[in-house]
Amino acid sequence: MDYRIEKDTMGEVQVPSHVYWGAQTQRSIENFQIAQDINKMPKEIIKAFAYLKHGAALANFEAGVLDEEKAKLIGVVCDEILEGKLDDQFPLVVWQTGSGTQSNMNCNEVIAYRAHVLKGGELNDKTKFLHPNDDVNKSQSSNDTFPTAMHIAAYKMLIEKTIPGIEKLRDTLAAKSKEFMNVVKIGRTHFMDATPLTLGQEFSGYVSQLNHGLKAINNTLDHLAELALGGTAVGTGINTPDGYSENVAGQIAKLTGLPFRTAENKFEALAAHDAIVEAHGALKTVAVSLMKIGNDVRMLSSGPRSGIGEIYIPDNEPGSSIMPGKVNPTQCEAMTMAAAQILGNDVAINIGGSNGHFELNVFKPMMIYNFLHSARLIGDVCVSFNDKCAVGIEPLHENIKKHVNNSLMLVTALNTKIGYYKAAEIAQTAHKNGSTLKETAIALGYLTAVEFDEWVKPEEMVGKIS
Amino acid sequence: MDYRIEKDTMGEVQVPSHVYWGAQTQRSIENFQIAQDINKMPKEIIKAFAYLKHGAALANFEAGVLDEEKAKLIGVVCDEILEGKLDDQFPLVVWQTGSGTQSNMNCNEVIAYRAHVLKGGELNDKTKFLHPNDDVNKSQSSNDTFPTAMHIAAYKMLIEKTIPGIEKLRDTLAAKSKEFMNVVKIGRTHFMDATPLTLGQEFSGYVSQLNHGLKAINNTLDHLAELALGGTAVGTGINTPDGYSENVAGQIAKLTGLPFRTAENKFEALAAHDAIVEAHGALKTVAVSLMKIGNDVRMLSSGPRSGIGEIYIPDNEPGSSIMPGKVNPTQCEAMTMAAAQILGNDVAINIGGSNGHFELNVFKPMMIYNFLHSARLIGDVCVSFNDKCAVGIEPLHENIKKHVNNSLMLVTALNTKIGYYKAAEIAQTAHKNGSTLKETAIALGYLTAVEFDEWVKPEEMVGKIS
Amino acid sequence: MDYRIEKDTMGEVQVPSHVYWGAQTQRSIENFQIAQDINKMPKEIIKAFAYLKHGAALANFEAGVLDEEKAKLIGVVCDEILEGKLDDQFPLVVWQTGSGTQSNMNCNEVIAYRAHVLKGGELNDKTKFLHPNDDVNKSQSSNDTFPTAMHIAAYKMLIEKTIPGIEKLRDTLAAKSKEFMNVVKIGRTHFMDATPLTLGQEFSGYVSQLNHGLKAINNTLDHLAELALGGTAVGTGINTPDGYSENVAGQIAKLTGLPFRTAENKFEALAAHDAIVEAHGALKTVAVSLMKIGNDVRMLSSGPRSGIGEIYIPDNEPGSSIMPGKVNPTQCEAMTMAAAQILGNDVAINIGGSNGHFELNVFKPMMIYNFLHSARLIGDVCVSFNDKCAVGIEPLHENIKKHVNNSLMLVTALNTKIGYYKAAEIAQTAHKNGSTLKETAIALGYLTAVEFDEWVKPEEMVGKIS
Amino acid sequence: MDYRIEKDTMGEVQVPSHVYWGAQTQRSIENFQIAQDINKMPKEIIKAFAYLKHGAALANFEAGVLDEEKAKLIGVVCDEILEGKLDDQFPLVVWQTGSGTQSNMNCNEVIAYRAHVLKGGELNDKTKFLHPNDDVNKSQSSNDTFPTAMHIAAYKMLIEKTIPGIEKLRDTLAAKSKEFMNVVKIGRTHFMDATPLTLGQEFSGYVSQLNHGLKAINNTLDHLAELALGGTAVGTGINTPDGYSENVAGQIAKLTGLPFRTAENKFEALAAHDAIVEAHGALKTVAVSLMKIGNDVRMLSSGPRSGIGEIYIPDNEPGSSIMPGKVNPTQCEAMTMAAAQILGNDVAINIGGSNGHFELNVFKPMMIYNFLHSARLIGDVCVSFNDKCAVGIEPLHENIKKHVNNSLMLVTALNTKIGYYKAAEIAQTAHKNGSTLKETAIALGYLTAVEFDEWVKPEEMVGKIS
Repeated sequence: MDYRIEKDTMGEVQVPSHVYWGAQTQRSIENFQIAQDINKMPKEIIKAFAYLKHGAALANFEAGVLDEEKAKLIGVVCDEILEGKLDDQFPLVVWQTGSGTQSNMNCNEVIAYRAHVLKGGELNDKTKFLHPNDDVNKSQSSNDTFPTAMHIAAYKMLIEKTIPGIEKLRDTLAAKSKEFMNVVKIGRTHFMDATPLTLGQEFSGYVSQLNHGLKAINNTLDHLAELALGGTAVGTGINTPDGYSENVAGQIAKLTGLPFRTAENKFEALAAHDAIVEAHGALKTVAVSLMKIGNDVRMLSSGPRSGIGEIYIPDNEPGSSIMPGKVNPTQCEAMTMAAAQILGNDVAINIGGSNGHFELNVFKPMMIYNFLHSARLIGDVCVSFNDKCAVGIEPLHENIKKHVNNSLMLVTALNTKIGYYKAAEIAQTAHKNGSTLKETAIALGYLTAVEFDEWVKPEEMVGKIS
Repeated sequence: MDYRIEKDTMGEVQVPSHVYWGAQTQRSIENFQIAQDINKMPKEIIKAFAYLKHGAALANFEAGVLDEEKAKLIGVVCDEILEGKLDDQFPLVVWQTGSGTQSNMNCNEVIAYRAHVLKGGELNDKTKFLHPNDDVNKSQSSNDTFPTAMHIAAYKMLIEKTIPGIEKLRDTLAAKSKEFMNVVKIGRTHFMDATPLTLGQEFSGYVSQLNHGLKAINNTLDHLAELALGGTAVGTGINTPDGYSENVAGQIAKLTGLPFRTAENKFEALAAHDAIVEAHGALKTVAVSLMKIGNDVRMLSSGPRSGIGEIYIPDNEPGSSIMPGKVNPTQCEAMTMAAAQILGNDVAINIGGSNGHFELNVFKPMMIYNFLHSARLIGDVCVSFNDKCAVGIEPLHENIKKHVNNSLMLVTALNTKIGYYKAAEIAQTAHKNGSTLKETAIALGYLTAVEFDEWVKPEEMVGKIS
Repeated sequence: MDYRIEKDTMGEVQVPSHVYWGAQTQRSIENFQIAQDINKMPKEIIKAFAYLKHGAALANFEAGVLDEEKAKLIGVVCDEILEGKLDDQFPLVVWQTGSGTQSNMNCNEVIAYRAHVLKGGELNDKTKFLHPNDDVNKSQSSNDTFPTAMHIAAYKMLIEKTIPGIEKLRDTLAAKSKEFMNVVKIGRTHFMDATPLTLGQEFSGYVSQLNHGLKAINNTLDHLAELALGGTAVGTGINTPDGYSENVAGQIAKLTGLPFRTAENKFEALAAHDAIVEAHGALKTVAVSLMKIGNDVRMLSSGPRSGIGEIYIPDNEPGSSIMPGKVNPTQCEAMTMAAAQILGNDVAINIGGSNGHFELNVFKPMMIYNFLHSARLIGDVCVSFNDKCAVGIEPLHENIKKHVNNSLMLVTALNTKIGYYKAAEIAQTAHKNGSTLKETAIALGYLTAVEFDEWVKPEEMVGKIS
Repeated sequence: MDYRIEKDTMGEVQVPSHVYWGAQTQRSIENFQIAQDINKMPKEIIKAFAYLKHGAALANFEAGVLDEEKAKLIGVVCDEILEGKLDDQFPLVVWQTGSGTQSNMNCNEVIAYRAHVLKGGELNDKTKFLHPNDDVNKSQSSNDTFPTAMHIAAYKMLIEKTIPGIEKLRDTLAAKSKEFMNVVKIGRTHFMDATPLTLGQEFSGYVSQLNHGLKAINNTLDHLAELALGGTAVGTGINTPDGYSENVAGQIAKLTGLPFRTAENKFEALAAHDAIVEAHGALKTVAVSLMKIGNDVRMLSSGPRSGIGEIYIPDNEPGSSIMPGKVNPTQCEAMTMAAAQILGNDVAINIGGSNGHFELNVFKPMMIYNFLHSARLIGDVCVSFNDKCAVGIEPLHENIKKHVNNSLMLVTALNTKIGYYKAAEIAQTAHKNGSTLKETAIALGYLTAVEFDEWVKPEEMVGKIS
C-alpha cells in the first residue's frame, strides 16, 4: 500500500496515501486492535459529529473566531458525511480511549483534509488549509464533543427509529384489541385456568404497556436534549468565545430539527452520563414489555394440537430442518432475544455510567454503543414483529370456545350467590370427577339448572367492554 | 405450643392458639421454609394492605355490599396494623406464591379474626363475625390487591424516604458548591491532570446529577399512582359493584394523602409491573450518580500524605484494627456498596417484570422486595452520607494550591495565543525536564515572562462562576 | 437505658451497660443508620469469625505470642458464639465500612469483654483481661480476617446447605426420570408440537442440568478454600509470627472440618474477591437451571382443563382468594422468584468485585451478603420445591396420550421413508384439514395404511431409553 | 438484480441469481430486517458449522446412509468455508429464529448448491446433486446442530484467543512482578495510606487473579466439550443411524483437534445452555479481574504532577484535542470498557439461558453472540493492553520513595513494641501537626530515635519476598 506521512504532536505517522484521515486516526487503528471487524464506532455517532462540527463552525464564525470560508468548507464536508459519501473514512472501534478522543480527532482530520482537497489542495501537502485541532476542533474538546454526539445520536435514534417502531406495533395491537373485544376467552393466572376475559381485553394490556413505555421514553428526552458542547476540557468552557454554548446548541437544534439546548451544568455533562443511564432505563422497561408480549403471543399460538392454540400467527418460513410442516413463532423469538440483549446492555451502561471519575467519564464509547444498539433493536424488532406477525394475528374461535366453556373457574360467578366455600366445593368436585360445573352444582344441591344458566354466563363475567 | 383448628377450602389446619392468623397463613409458613429468618415480606407491604383493606371496606360499604359495622371494624384493625400493634401477626416470607396470595390472605385472616375478638368473640369460635374471603376480601382478589399494595408501598417509600434523603444530600452539596465556588483547583480527566476548575464547580456537577435524578424519579410517580384495585381476578373486575374501582382508589388516596387513581387498564396492572420496572430505572440512575459521587469524594480525600488530599472528610471511627490512627472514607463505602446492591436489584426486577404470563405476573413479592430495598437504601445512605460525611467536607487549601500551580495543563490557556502544537511542545518539554511551564515556555522562545503571567492565570481559566 | 463508658483511639463512647460490645461497635451503630432492621450482617459471618478468632488464638499461642489462658478464654467465647448464646451481641449491618472492619471489631470487643466477665471481671472495669486489638485481633487485620470469614461462611454454606439441597432435588428428579422412562409423550420445541420423547427423558435433562451445576459449584471450592489470614494489613503479613499463615489455616481447617489452606497470594486475597465472583458464577448457573425446571413444571402442569396438563403436582394450598377451587404451582413460583433474585445478586457481586482498588477491595460486606443470600436461597428452595412439589409429581396419562396421538410431528418418522418434502406435505395438509396424519398420508397416495402403522410408532421414535 | 427461483416446503422464493444460498436463507433475510448491518451471525459460528457438517457427512458415510461422493463434496465445500472463500454467502443476522434454524439452513443450502456447482451443475438447475435437508442435514436437526456449533465456536475461541491473550498478559505481569519485587512502596487501603509492600508484590496479586481466572475458564471446558449432535429434533436422536452420536463427535474432534465428545444427556444439550452460562461465568470473573487491574494501573500512573504517579505507562497517542501534551491511560480505558461490556453480556446470557422451555432453548443465537463477543474481547484487550501498556510499565522511583517515607502508617511496626493505642496516638499527633512519625514518637516520649530507626524500616515491613 502507498503511504504518506502525517504528523501530530507525538511525531510522524505513516497513513495510507488515499485516505482523508491523519496521524491520530492511524495511531488509534494500530493501538486498538480489538474486535476491529465487529465493533466499529456506530455510524450514528459519526453523523452526530457531522451535525456538531457544522454547528460549531457556524457558532465560531458568528463569534468571529473562524473565518467564513473555513466555516463553509467545514459545513460542506459535514453534509458529505451525512450523505454517507465518506463512510469508509471512519475506521475506528468502540474500544479506544474512553473519552472518544480518537473518534473526535478522526472527524477533525477527515473534515480538515477533505476540505483541503475540496479547496483544490492535495493530501500530500505539508500544510493544509484547515487544521484539525485549531480550526475544526475550535472551541471544542473531545470531552464536550463526544458527549454531545452521544446525545444527538441517542435522541435522533429514539425519535426516528425507536418511538415510531413502538408506535407502529402499538397501533396494530390497539386495532387488534378493538377487533377482538367481544371474543370471550378463558383467563389464565399462574398458568392455570381463571375467570374469562375477552381477547381484546387481553391485547389492551399490551397496548397499555407500550403506551406507558412510550411515555417513559418521552420523559427522558428532556435530559438527553442537554448538550455538553461549550464545556470543553473540564466543563469550565475554557477557550470558548462568549455566548458560544447557547449559540452552538441553537445551531445544532436548527440543523437537526430537534429541541437541543445547552446543558445547564457542564460539569455533570462531561463527568456523568446519567441522561444515557436514565433514558436506557426507559428502554429496558420497553424491553420488559416486549418480552411479556412476545411470550404471551407464542404461548397463545402454541400447538397446533397439543398447546393452547387460541390465536393464529402467520407462517413465515419452514420451522424445522427435520420436522416437516412445522411452523414456529420466530418473530416472538427474535423479539424476546432482543429484549434479553437490551437487559444485558442496561447493565453495561450502568457500570459505565457509575465509573465516571472527577471531571470525566471515560466509558463513553461503550455506553453509547450499547444505547444505540438497544434503541435500534427496539425499533427494528417492533417493526419486524408488527409486519411479520402482529398484523396477521387472528383468533382461533373453536379452541377459544372450547377452553372457556370447559373452565371450572366460571364458578367464581357464584361467589356472590352462594359464598366462596360452596363455590370451591363445586369446582373441586367437578375437577375430581371430570364433570361439568353445572351438573356438579346441581348434584350438590346448591342451585338449580335455571339458576346456573342465569348466573354463570362467561360473556357477562368480563366486565364493561370499552 | 397450644393450637386451635382453623379451616379453609382444603380442610383443617393447626394454628397456634394465640395468633390472629388462620389456615392459609399457617399453610404458607409450613410450605415455604425458605430464608424465613431473613426475607420477611416487607412491613411496608403489610401497611399498604392496611390502607387498601380499609379503603375497600369503605368502598364496599358505600356500594351497599358490606354492612357498616363490618366496614368499621375492618377500619379499626387496619389502624392497629398501621400503628404497629399487630406486627408479629405477619410471619410470611417473600418466597411464597408469586401473586402474593398468601400475604393477602394473611391480612384477610388477621383482620377478620382480630375484628372478631374486638367485637367480643374468641379465636376459638367456629364461626367468626367477619369472614376473611367473603367480607375482608370482598370485591377483591390477590391479583389486584397485591399489585395495589406494591404501588402504595413503593410510592410512599419514594415520597417519604427516598426523595427526602436525596434532597437532603443535594441541599448540602449545593451549599458546599456555593461555599467552594472560588476555590480554584486542578481538574482531572482520565485520572490525569487537566485544566483547572473550582471545587464549587466540581460539586455543582453532583448537585446537577441529583437534581436530574429527582426529576427522573418524579417522572415515574404517575405510573405508580395507578392502582390495580377493581380488576379482581384477571382485570375484568368480576364480582365488584358499579363504580367501585374509582371509589376505592379515591378512598385510598384520602387515607394515604397521596394522589392515587384507578389504573386505566387493569389488564396491564395485573399482568405486568412495568411501573415498578420503570420507577426502579430511575432509582438505578440515582445509584449510578451516588457511585460517582462516593468515588469522587473518597479519591479527593485520599491520603493523608500519599493521595490526592484535596478535601477533608470527617473522622468518624478508627479505621483499622491493625494500623493505628488510620481513618477511612467509610460513608463513601457504605454508599457505593448500596449503589452496587441497587444495580443488582435492578436486574432481579427486570427479570421478574419480563416474566409475567397471560393475565398475571407471578414475580410480585420478589419485585417489590427489591424495589423497597433499593428505595430504602437510597434514602438511608443519602442521609447517612450527608450527616456523617458531606456536611463536614472542607477544602484542604494547601494541597489544592500545590496541585493547581504545578499543573502542566495550564498550558491550554496558550492554545489561542500560540497554537496547539507549540503549547504541546512546552508541556511535553516541561514534563520531560521536570521544569515549570513558565521557564520552559521562555526557554523555548515562544513567549515572554510577562506574556506568560498575563495569559496563564488559573483563576481565569475556570469560566464564568455562577 | 443505662450506659457505661468505653474508649477507643478516638475517645469515649457511651455503650449500653449490659452489652458485651464496646466503643467501635457502638460508633458503627450510630454512624450507619442504614436499613438497620433488615440488613444485619449475616449470622454466618459472625460464626465464621468465631472459627477464625479461635484458630488465630491457637496459632498465636503456638507461636508464643499469646499466653495460654488468653487463648483458651478466646476459644470458650468463640464456642459460645457458635452455640448462638451471644446472637444479640452483633447488631451491625452490611452497610458499614467496606472492609468489614467494624464487624471484626464487634467480634474482637465481644470476645474480649465476654472473656473478661467469664474470668470474673465486670463490664465496667476500666481495664479488661483481654484487649480487643492487642489480644483478640493479634496477628490479624480486618483486611485479612473479613475475607477469611467470607470464605469460611461461603464454603460452609455451599457444603451444608446449597449442595445438599440441589442433591436432594436432583435425586428426586432422577427417581422420577427413571419411573417415567417409558411414558411416551409429545415433545415441544418453540412451544410447538414436535417429535415424541418420554417423560423420563424430559426429566433426565433436569437431572443433567443439576449434575452439571453441582460440578460447577465443586469446581469453585478450591479457590474458596484459600484463606487470606496471615496477610494482615496489605497482604505482606506484617505483625505476624513465622509460620503463622499456614498454622492458622490449619487450625481453621481442623475446627471446621473443611479443607481450608492459606492463600498462595495474599495480595489477591485482600484486594480482590474473584473467588466469590467465580463461585457465584456457578450459583447463577444453577439459578438458570432452576428457572428452566420451574418453568417447565408449571407449564406441564398447567390447566386443569385449558392448559397442557401432562403432569400432576401436589395441591398445597387454596390458590385464589377469589376463584374457588383454584390450585397454583406455587413452589415453582417461589423457585423462579429466587432464581431471579440470584441473577440480580450476581450483578451486585460483579460490581463489587470489580471495584477493588490497590491493596483492598472495600465492597466486602455487600459481596458476602449477596453470596450467602443466593447460596441459602438455592439450598432452601431446592428442598422446598422437592418436598412440596417434586416428590408428588405424577404423569396425567390421559392427556399425555391424547397429545402424542394427535401430533402432526409424528410425520418426522417418514422422512427417511418418503423424503422431507412429501412428509411436509402430509403434515401441512392434515393441519389444514384437521385430519389425522394417517388418513392424509393415504389420501395423498404416499403410503398405505399398513406402512403407516409400521413406520409411525411414537414409542419407537424416542430412541434408546437407558 | 437478477433472480432465480428456489423452492422450499412453503413454495417459491426469488433468490439473487449468483448466490449459493436458497429459499430459506432468502426468507430469513426478508423476514428479519433487524440490525442487519451490525449484528451478523458471528463468523465463528459459520466456521463451526463447517466442521460439524463435514463431520456429519463422514459419520453418515460410515454409517452407510450417505454415499461417498456426496460426503466428499460436502467436505470440500466445508473446507472452502473454513478458508473464508464463501464468507459473503452467510448474510443472516443474530435476530432470527431462536433455534438458529435459518443459519443451519443457510449452511445446508450453501453447501448443497456450491457442491452442485463444483460437480459441474448450475445454480439454475431445478434438481441439484445434493439436497440441503436430505443430504447435507442428514441425521441432523437445527436443534442439535446449532448448539453443537455453539460449543465448537465457544471452545475454539477460548482456546485460540481468550486463554492465550490472558496468558500473554499474565506472563508480562509476572515478569514485571519479579522485576519490581524489591521496590518498596506505600500500600493503600480504602484509598488511604497503609503499610508498605513492594511494587512486585502488588503486581503479584494481578498475576494471581489471572491465574485463578485461567483455572476457572479451564474448569468450564469440560462441559463445553459435550456436543449435542445426535440428539436431532428433541434429544431422542430420531432419524440417526446407530452409533452416530459417538462417531460424529469423534469426527469433529479429529477435524478440530479439540477433545469434543458426545453429550451424555442430549435433552439438556438442546433445552438448556448451562455450559455457555457456566463458561461465561468464568469469563465474567476474568472481566472483574481486568477491571481491577485496569483501574489500579491508571490510578498508579495518574498525574503527571497531581496524582499518584508511582508507575510510568507508555505514551501511545496525544491524549487531548484541546489540552496540549496530555497523555492518557487509554489502554486501561479500552480494557475497562470491555470489562463493563462483558458484565452486561453476562446478564443477557443468563436471561437467555433461563428461558429454555420444554425440549428447546430458543435464545441460542443471542447467547452465542454474546459469548463470542466476550471471549473475543478478553483475548483482544489482554493482548492490546499487554503490547501497548503492560510491557512498558516502569516504576517512578522518586515518587514511590517520597510516598513511602512520608507515610504515617509505618507506625504499624510499633504495635508489637508499644501497643496499638500509643502507636495510634503517635500517628494522629503527627497527622495533626504535619510532623514526621519519628519526631512525634520521640516528642511523646514513647521511644528513642535509635529505637525508631531500628523498629521502623519500610523494607522490613513487607514480609517475605519470594
